[in-house]
Amino acid sequence: MATVTLKVEGMSCNHCKEAVEGSLKKLPGVKSAVVDLDAKTATVTYEEGAVSVDQMKKAVEDQGYDVV
Amino acid sequence: MATVTLKVEGMSCNHCKEAVEGSLKKLPGVKSAVVDLDAKTATVTYEEGAVSVDQMKKAVEDQGYDVV
Repeated sequence: MATVTLKVEGMSCNHCKEAVEGSLKKLPGVKSAVVDLDAKTATVTYEEGAVSVDQMKKAVEDQGYDVV
Repeated sequence: MATVTLKVEGMSCNHCKEAVEGSLKKLPGVKSAVVDLDAKTATVTYEEGAVSVDQMKKAVEDQGYDVV
């Protein structure tokens, strides 16, 4: 298992949190995804090789948020 | 038809807008509900007698927002 923390801009409320976490959890190999609204982060635990950080970024960006 | 504009606190993004508009549109007699995020308002057009402003306030508050 590996963990990556993405810096995400534009998340403002619990709906945003759920949208981002949900999009990450749908990816293959993602074990958990936790958004911290105050820190503006999404921390993802995943199986290495099953999913790339680029795929995570795309999933979050597709929800309308910027990964910086 | 009547129109009322509610002042709503706590709406921060389009998910909030949809949550508030959706909760209002579900009420009987509500013809339209439009949230203006910048103005912090929800404008509701409704059939008088079919729904009360108190019911609208409750619907919005049940979504986690404050009607002021």
